[in-house]
Amino acid sequence: MSQTTWQYENFEHTGSAIGFRVTRKLDEVQSPFQKIEIFETTDWGNLMLIDGAVMLTTRDNFLYHEMMSHPALFTHADPKRVVIIGGGDCGTLREVLKHKGVQSATQCDIDEQVTRMAEKWFPELCDSNGDARAELLFDDGVAYMKNCPEGSVDIVIVDSTDPVGPAEGLFNKSFYESCFRALRDDGILVQQSESPLALLDLIRSMRAEMGKAGFTAFKTLPFPQPCYPTGWWSCTLARKSGGFEFREQAARDAGLKTKYYSADIHRGALATPPFVTEALDA
Amino acid sequence: MSQTTWQYENFEHTGSAIGFRVTRKLDEVQSPFQKIEIFETTDWGNLMLIDGAVMLTTRDNFLYHEMMSHPALFTHADPKRVVIIGGGDCGTLREVLKHKGVQSATQCDIDEQVTRMAEKWFPELCDSNGDARAELLFDDGVAYMKNCPEGSVDIVIVDSTDPVGPAEGLFNKSFYESCFRALRDDGILVQQSESPLALLDLIRSMRAEMGKAGFTAFKTLPFPQPCYPTGWWSCTLARKSGGFEFREQAARDAGLKTKYYSADIHRGALATPPFVTEALDA
Repeated sequence: MSQTTWQYENFEHTGSAIGFRVTRKLDEVQSPFQKIEIFETTDWGNLMLIDGAVMLTTRDNFLYHEMMSHPALFTHADPKRVVIIGGGDCGTLREVLKHKGVQSATQCDIDEQVTRMAEKWFPELCDSNGDARAELLFDDGVAYMKNCPEGSVDIVIVDSTDPVGPAEGLFNKSFYESCFRALRDDGILVQQSESPLALLDLIRSMRAEMGKAGFTAFKTLPFPQPCYPTGWWSCTLARKSGGFEFREQAARDAGLKTKYYSADIHRGALATPPFVTEALDA
Repeated sequence: MSQTTWQYENFEHTGSAIGFRVTRKLDEVQSPFQKIEIFETTDWGNLMLIDGAVMLTTRDNFLYHEMMSHPALFTHADPKRVVIIGGGDCGTLREVLKHKGVQSATQCDIDEQVTRMAEKWFPELCDSNGDARAELLFDDGVAYMKNCPEGSVDIVIVDSTDPVGPAEGLFNKSFYESCFRALRDDGILVQQSESPLALLDLIRSMRAEMGKAGFTAFKTLPFPQPCYPTGWWSCTLARKSGGFEFREQAARDAGLKTKYYSADIHRGALATPPFVTEALDA
């Protein structure tokens, strides 16, 4: 084996760090928005960093992408029109398009270079980019949602980086109002919502902003994600109306090829640990 | 704030690392078996290292301790006699003793210094050490299980370090045979079983050894554990007879004061992700 080094990311706000053993840097590009780097690791496949923050690895991205998509799609009664804000690595798009009932899925990421790097270094995530139902836009997600026709979307998935830098505008009332307007009455908003262990304050304030925008019900689903702070991550679903009963039989019958998601995992993720309930109710 | 540094642990076998931001070293002792260090962290309370490996933090140990105990205790029909091998920090003992039906719980850790350090730096974990049902032994767990009267124990919990160094003898057929012999016919063996993402080979070989010792059914329950490799951990339950249906109503009625464990979390943890099932069946 060639010489290896350890690449660490220190998370200031959680006081913890994650690291990977890397063999070499494979690629680097400075886009108009951010610096994107690709490393080769010894055990995790390829690793993408944006401005020094770990975005994904070949080995563990399936956890995040499956949980950002399937729970929402098997909660909505009949999702046909899906919008993904961010998600430039195309992994969430691929999962969404596994649902045959989806008629169109638009991915709107501000940075085309993320997708170009994904095509090159994570080609398996871009498998469905040529699907006739897929639309890839490289534009400002805030503006896109603002201009979306009212009541035209079934599910909006906000697959963004952390609420700093380019993604800052994706975590506030104004953006959530645009999502609320664009969604049909039974629509669902999905937002990646950080660590349910270390960042409950963020989840609480995110829910509060969503509530101010008109959303009436919220559910935070935890899942493992080794490459993010604490190794435990979550997505938060918000509804305009209705709750989070899921189409369990449909999930079983669909026979989607997934690695982490299943009807049982979905049901399990609906169980909120007591300490999370307590913190979110506080 | 005083000057802080980042304390990393590199996991050679997973190619990943975990780190914490620490303010200072609080304590250190070299026991006859291992070096125990205590650090103060900025966000995770106190941190215990054994021979440089993270054992626990004040903030996240509840995940591990609750999941090592309650699922087994709410699976067994009527657990009265529990043995904990290892577990010197006393956190698992505390959880076990929350069950009123338990008549005696013996903790057998080879290293008394682990308990002394826990009493000093994690006193909340030692809350139940004075319980009349608790017995604390500082002795060789392999010998203890070998000498246990046949059919005298309901649940054996192997709360050990990784299968290297002092704990190496706790992961093989010979040790599991002693556990099998000591357990009653409806007994349950619980073993911490490392990361279900990165260490499936270890879980598979552990189950194989348990099978050779006579155990007939196995269930691996995953749970989040930020301070261990990948942040996702597991315990494996093995039975002499019967399966893993749990006493759900009893778990709901018991009203145990827990932070992570609940009947719903227990049910959720019984869902095995497709990629784990595939790897364990291979």
